[in-house]
Amino acid sequence: MTTQKVNLIEKFELINEYWQPRIAGELNGQQIKIAKLKGEFIWHHHDNEDEFFMVIKGNLKIALPDQEINLGEGEFFIVPRMVEHKPIADEEVWVMMFEPTGTLNTGNIRSELTKEELENI
Amino acid sequence: MTTQKVNLIEKFELINEYWQPRIAGELNGQQIKIAKLKGEFIWHHHDNEDEFFMVIKGNLKIALPDQEINLGEGEFFIVPRMVEHKPIADEEVWVMMFEPTGTLNTGNIRSELTKEELENI
Repeated sequence: MTTQKVNLIEKFELINEYWQPRIAGELNGQQIKIAKLKGEFIWHHHDNEDEFFMVIKGNLKIALPDQEINLGEGEFFIVPRMVEHKPIADEEVWVMMFEPTGTLNTGNIRSELTKEELENI
Repeated sequence: MTTQKVNLIEKFELINEYWQPRIAGELNGQQIKIAKLKGEFIWHHHDNEDEFFMVIKGNLKIALPDQEINLGEGEFFIVPRMVEHKPIADEEVWVMMFEPTGTLNTGNIRSELTKEELENI
């Protein structure tokens, strides 16, 4: 386990791809992930994991079955397990996530967007 | 479980006390806590919980047995379980924490700073 501090902005500046979460920290069986997002993701849900999304820079929409959440900088939203959702970034957005280790980015769906192995950053 | 977004700054503005964590979210058996800190806390550790500290505003020092971590805005540090630590805020600092539900703020120590029941915010 790292015993160094992490500067989020410095870590985000190392990321060159969209929709590719990287692991920035791990604790209590959970991971801190960061990702740059742009465009529309796919509809999916997670059977057993709630997902925390916090915007560090930019704006993120999270489409839900019955509403759309609009997150600005310093705002977070927790998507409960089993709830269908689709992240949408009209412009590039920097997002921090907090979820159990092993949570698959595309949840119940396998697609070309699925990332099986995440790298540390 | 809340299905509303949370604006961290708005939540911090509701806090009038130091060293009084409030629960801003809950997921997967973990809690998102926020607190305003000023002054020195006590040395303590947590037997079974790693603790995530992220600075939202201001600067936080975390004294460890062999070093001192200095966190500025947008920086986080994970204190591993069993590691003695003492948070120090020379000036007011706004901190977000991730830790398992039920984690006691003073860990292995009971003192007047111990908060048994945390309120939601």
